[in-house]
Amino acid sequence: MIVDNALYHRGQRVPLGAEGHESLGHARVPCDPGDFQWIGVHDPTADELDQIARTFDLHPLAVEDAGDSHQRPKLERYGDTLFLVLKTLWYVDEEDAVETGEINMFVGPDFVVTVRHGQGIDLSSARRDLERRAQVLEHGPMAVLYAICDRVVDEYERVGAALEIDVDEVEASVFSPARTDDSTRIYVLKREIAEVRRAVLPLREPMRKFAMGVDERITPETATYFRDVADHLQRVAEVVDNLDMLLSTAFEAHLARISVQQNEDMRKISAGAALVVVPTLVAGVYGMNFDHMPELHWRYGYPYALLVMASMVAALWAFFKKSGWL
Amino acid sequence: MIVDNALYHRGQRVPLGAEGHESLGHARVPCDPGDFQWIGVHDPTADELDQIARTFDLHPLAVEDAGDSHQRPKLERYGDTLFLVLKTLWYVDEEDAVETGEINMFVGPDFVVTVRHGQGIDLSSARRDLERRAQVLEHGPMAVLYAICDRVVDEYERVGAALEIDVDEVEASVFSPARTDDSTRIYVLKREIAEVRRAVLPLREPMRKFAMGVDERITPETATYFRDVADHLQRVAEVVDNLDMLLSTAFEAHLARISVQQNEDMRKISAGAALVVVPTLVAGVYGMNFDHMPELHWRYGYPYALLVMASMVAALWAFFKKSGWL
Amino acid sequence: MIVDNALYHRGQRVPLGAEGHESLGHARVPCDPGDFQWIGVHDPTADELDQIARTFDLHPLAVEDAGDSHQRPKLERYGDTLFLVLKTLWYVDEEDAVETGEINMFVGPDFVVTVRHGQGIDLSSARRDLERRAQVLEHGPMAVLYAICDRVVDEYERVGAALEIDVDEVEASVFSPARTDDSTRIYVLKREIAEVRRAVLPLREPMRKFAMGVDERITPETATYFRDVADHLQRVAEVVDNLDMLLSTAFEAHLARISVQQNEDMRKISAGAALVVVPTLVAGVYGMNFDHMPELHWRYGYPYALLVMASMVAALWAFFKKSGWL
Amino acid sequence: MIVDNALYHRGQRVPLGAEGHESLGHARVPCDPGDFQWIGVHDPTADELDQIARTFDLHPLAVEDAGDSHQRPKLERYGDTLFLVLKTLWYVDEEDAVETGEINMFVGPDFVVTVRHGQGIDLSSARRDLERRAQVLEHGPMAVLYAICDRVVDEYERVGAALEIDVDEVEASVFSPARTDDSTRIYVLKREIAEVRRAVLPLREPMRKFAMGVDERITPETATYFRDVADHLQRVAEVVDNLDMLLSTAFEAHLARISVQQNEDMRKISAGAALVVVPTLVAGVYGMNFDHMPELHWRYGYPYALLVMASMVAALWAFFKKSGWL
Amino acid sequence: MIVDNALYHRGQRVPLGAEGHESLGHARVPCDPGDFQWIGVHDPTADELDQIARTFDLHPLAVEDAGDSHQRPKLERYGDTLFLVLKTLWYVDEEDAVETGEINMFVGPDFVVTVRHGQGIDLSSARRDLERRAQVLEHGPMAVLYAICDRVVDEYERVGAALEIDVDEVEASVFSPARTDDSTRIYVLKREIAEVRRAVLPLREPMRKFAMGVDERITPETATYFRDVADHLQRVAEVVDNLDMLLSTAFEAHLARISVQQNEDMRKISAGAALVVVPTLVAGVYGMNFDHMPELHWRYGYPYALLVMASMVAALWAFFKKSGWL
Repeated sequence: MIVDNALYHRGQRVPLGAEGHESLGHARVPCDPGDFQWIGVHDPTADELDQIARTFDLHPLAVEDAGDSHQRPKLERYGDTLFLVLKTLWYVDEEDAVETGEINMFVGPDFVVTVRHGQGIDLSSARRDLERRAQVLEHGPMAVLYAICDRVVDEYERVGAALEIDVDEVEASVFSPARTDDSTRIYVLKREIAEVRRAVLPLREPMRKFAMGVDERITPETATYFRDVADHLQRVAEVVDNLDMLLSTAFEAHLARISVQQNEDMRKISAGAALVVVPTLVAGVYGMNFDHMPELHWRYGYPYALLVMASMVAALWAFFKKSGWL
Repeated sequence: MIVDNALYHRGQRVPLGAEGHESLGHARVPCDPGDFQWIGVHDPTADELDQIARTFDLHPLAVEDAGDSHQRPKLERYGDTLFLVLKTLWYVDEEDAVETGEINMFVGPDFVVTVRHGQGIDLSSARRDLERRAQVLEHGPMAVLYAICDRVVDEYERVGAALEIDVDEVEASVFSPARTDDSTRIYVLKREIAEVRRAVLPLREPMRKFAMGVDERITPETATYFRDVADHLQRVAEVVDNLDMLLSTAFEAHLARISVQQNEDMRKISAGAALVVVPTLVAGVYGMNFDHMPELHWRYGYPYALLVMASMVAALWAFFKKSGWL
Repeated sequence: MIVDNALYHRGQRVPLGAEGHESLGHARVPCDPGDFQWIGVHDPTADELDQIARTFDLHPLAVEDAGDSHQRPKLERYGDTLFLVLKTLWYVDEEDAVETGEINMFVGPDFVVTVRHGQGIDLSSARRDLERRAQVLEHGPMAVLYAICDRVVDEYERVGAALEIDVDEVEASVFSPARTDDSTRIYVLKREIAEVRRAVLPLREPMRKFAMGVDERITPETATYFRDVADHLQRVAEVVDNLDMLLSTAFEAHLARISVQQNEDMRKISAGAALVVVPTLVAGVYGMNFDHMPELHWRYGYPYALLVMASMVAALWAFFKKSGWL
Repeated sequence: MIVDNALYHRGQRVPLGAEGHESLGHARVPCDPGDFQWIGVHDPTADELDQIARTFDLHPLAVEDAGDSHQRPKLERYGDTLFLVLKTLWYVDEEDAVETGEINMFVGPDFVVTVRHGQGIDLSSARRDLERRAQVLEHGPMAVLYAICDRVVDEYERVGAALEIDVDEVEASVFSPARTDDSTRIYVLKREIAEVRRAVLPLREPMRKFAMGVDERITPETATYFRDVADHLQRVAEVVDNLDMLLSTAFEAHLARISVQQNEDMRKISAGAALVVVPTLVAGVYGMNFDHMPELHWRYGYPYALLVMASMVAALWAFFKKSGWL
Repeated sequence: MIVDNALYHRGQRVPLGAEGHESLGHARVPCDPGDFQWIGVHDPTADELDQIARTFDLHPLAVEDAGDSHQRPKLERYGDTLFLVLKTLWYVDEEDAVETGEINMFVGPDFVVTVRHGQGIDLSSARRDLERRAQVLEHGPMAVLYAICDRVVDEYERVGAALEIDVDEVEASVFSPARTDDSTRIYVLKREIAEVRRAVLPLREPMRKFAMGVDERITPETATYFRDVADHLQRVAEVVDNLDMLLSTAFEAHLARISVQQNEDMRKISAGAALVVVPTLVAGVYGMNFDHMPELHWRYGYPYALLVMASMVAALWAFFKKSGWL
């Protein structure tokens, strides 16, 4: 589905008649130098992609990749068209889960094609924001590229911050005195961190290239902005690496605590058992059928026996309390 | 066994008389520039290989490697002949297992020799597909090289996807409340992932070299196609690395759950034991032979004793239920 | 809040009238070559930062970073202004915890702006120290940069030394015969070590660059001093790496000791149980109601039975003592 | 001990009179260009080494290394003499153990000195094989170097294959239902794999250097042969790396299985205990001495009590069978 | 404390009058080209260091480092003076412990200053040895540098060999059938190996630099000797890496054995318990008070009951023996 399609002239959206609008995306509208078209499509059909590919003369391998939503982030150059694949990430609070989508961008000398798969970042709002900043948009297609990367990476940072809260919760749970089975939660978090890492790490190289001005359309000024994006990306990478390390350590601590608790349980159980079996032995003794057992004939033999049992239980109780088994 | 043998001229298979066909593989058929022979052999005997080696003047070390089916993937150059070893992988659904085979290719200026060991990828169908795409085949031996690499790597991706499903199953099993012994399954999967990795990783370097146009017969256009193969290879590598990491984490979670379950069992057992030994103590007490035990002479002494036992059991039951031990 | 603001001429603080002082930080005071302003701000408001940015023509991206206190250490160059982000660390004895703050520095040809977030290092005292060493201050803004880096890294070394003591304590606790649950302590220490590492590691590259004289304002003599800072940084990095490794090993030893202790407990418990159940069996035997049980009619049958029980207990005790179970 | 000593001319062993033979190794026999001496010594005394060192003017540091049998594999160049240290490995079937020896080679322009320590590879047979291949031997000292490296690395591959069988056995043992203590076996195998790795890894660099023709005496043809050796070396390295990884995973699975088995044992034991303590409780009840216990006076009270016990045991049995505890 | 101080001329110690001796270390004694002073100090006071620094014009940062005994090994160049920090290691047999000291060396064109901290290597004996080898000492200050590095690294090899013996002992203990708590020993060894590694690893780079002749005073001949030192250093590094790996594996095996032993204990305990509780049940049965229990009235009822108990115990014993529980 073609979501939006516009012609930009000196950083301004050009108002077009219905007819002019129709032609966008179906023909390379004659442009002044510096003018460019920006076509945004969302979950496109093969036909829509074909049409766009023919219009802008896109390379078939890139078009094939753009139609598939399971690419890894990468930057490729086909002639004077850059092809960038980005993973979008966002955090769904209700499910404590990280969701992923994908944006593919073709950036040519006088056009930008953005192909979005799945939900996630809202490119229309990114476009509206950018349209309000004419001085940025003036820089042409590379400005659009920057604006989207910046938006995507900002979202990564929000995801990183949300994961930090999740890890804090897991940590609190692991070290709480309550008996908790945190392994599932830790596993899920590690899985999500792996997903973030797979989005973030392969993107560092393209951003670094832009920051070093790998393309002749990147001015030193624009490069500075890409360096900022690369820096944020690096920060996200370090945050999730650190979270991953903390989770591994927390998991090991979880294992240790299970062992310690089992040990405590065992001692508690044993002490409890002793409180029962020892008086049982006494009862057994006075249950013997010897002819000559003086205690049996005492007037207060029975209370005496009960007292013996009770004292034994009390003594054991005190002993186990003192040695920390109960 | 020589499976197929043909002469290609401008991307078209040349129809040859019986006699002409006979000579293929036994002599370098005089070719126009751009023409080439493609000989496919499967599990060849030493004699067959020798014959081919003599015909195309192949290096003895490469021929020795081609006769052995336990090579590691590699690219070597002997004079103007490239020698590429590929591992083929395929997933056998019935056994949930990854199987491996091997393809050795000699790519000379006017010939391609493909030597296949074991089952796996069907090179005849790859050849038929390629023969239908004359515009690709026109590029000569390097096009055959590309077509086979592409086919092999596509199969890798299918194997990767199948392993992803297997890992999902293991994960579900590990975190299911049922008591499962998943260690064998995890071990087997890790072993298979190691096999995939050994096929995939050493192939990245040759593909990268082709993508950079290491051979003068690789046109920029062909290089773009090899870059695509290298990219898919990278994706497979990342998928299996991620699966390996997930399996390790799942395994640790499995260990943690075993411990937690053992702890729960122990507490359940202890609580169960208490329900028996406590009334046994009561029975022991009333089994004592004291002369003066008033309860023994009560009319309802016996039901009273049973009631005492039952109440104790009930109280313990409630206590253990409340504290989560039962 | 602007903490201090002064003009330096040939390594000396220039006494300024109230009016002159007012102008500092609001205008580039005309300077002789070699003179420079040093403005120190602490937790600045957006307005204060804006004012300073306008005065010294700082790049908006750097200013944005300087206003945020969650940057990672980095060195960036905008035109002829260097922008350095440092993490400050200090150890709070009362809480056995490492705290972090941040210093951002803009170093231009004739000015230094230091922006401090949070507590930690006291920049005023660093300034006073430096003002006493005119021969250093003479080197201009780079001398300020060096002095602050040196001070910050000295503090890192103190933190490293404090963590070494903490790790020694954990070690002593793990290997003490007492039963301790050290996993929480180890986790917290690993978390703090990770924090130190995140402050130290990214700073090594900037220091190395200064040591190699990356900036034309760095004289060979100054470079030697930065090499010294880089060397100390390296030492801190090695110290915390080593501590991290020791903690991991100590943690594993902790796990092993828990298992060993559980084993010992189990054997102790079992031996204890045997001391009770064996005489209970004897009592059971003499509690049987057979008509013909000679012992029951012995005059000293009862003491004899008690003696049998006691001897059995003594024999078991001796046996278990000898085999190390008690 | 000097094992063999000969002069080679155009790939042929030169028959020498007794006198001529005597002089070998004690003097640089005047040679035509391309002729060379090959002296083989085994566990030499210091005197023998000194004599040889003087004759061929070997560097004292290399001679010192050659006399010591605990070197690491390395290639060094002293003037126009190459000094290569190789570890030899072989697998002793009776002990399932990898044994190591050492070969030191001095390769000069017109001589080869091979110094063997310990058992292992049989250099005499290597020499005889080589003498039969005059076309190889013609290449001079480098051909001897190649022949020995090839032989040594072939032996590495045999060791690798033997270790693969050992690992398969361990794997079968770990995953067999029998209770096995595989940790010793795994440890020993890991130790042997470490030994193989220490022989193989440092040798890769010298072989790579020969394959790239680092020495002017290496012809492109010879380089191809060394590339083959380097390739086999790489294969061995990957095989043992994979085995090491498999052993680690198998070990973890072994740990998991111990835990699972302990859990099963505990449940089996508990169920068994229940089968005894429950009827004991019943017996205890009917052992009470109440005056009014109707069952005691029933004609079939005793069989009834036994029946109650038996039914309880049967019910518990069925229950535990169903829940998988027995 | 100044330990020794001498002037060397053509590899010979120059006999000096008392007066001449006095001046050493306080003035640069006029030297012929090639002559040099060698001053050795041990745990110097600040004053002694200052005096020397002034005499030889040493850089204040290096002097500061030389006065501190907690440096990491490093090589630095200040003008034409090299500053090398070495860690000395030695093994104290009585305590099975590795001790560390430090040597700092200043190597100028006509002087060597060695500053030793702590115990360890005996530099006086190194000096005496060197004085006996005039042909080495003739090479000037670099020869002293080589001699000390060689001596220090030889000591590293002895430490490595001693640690190998310790690891063998730990290994024997872990795999002995005795129940041992080896975790403390393993921890201590790992800690010592870390110490060795911290001494060895940073020294490799300086030795490699000397071997490549980084300084113009290093002749190709001297470089060969430094290559030998670098090679020994590499060997030590590999030895301790291997020991570390073995210890980790041994530790895991230790954990596995604890689990296996606990399992065996549990089964032994359970079997033992069965031998007591089963006859207790029988005793309980015959302790019941039913009016009609024929066995009670049998003449040999009591021996019969005891026989029943004994047979049950015997049967259980046989059963548990057979199934390996006892």
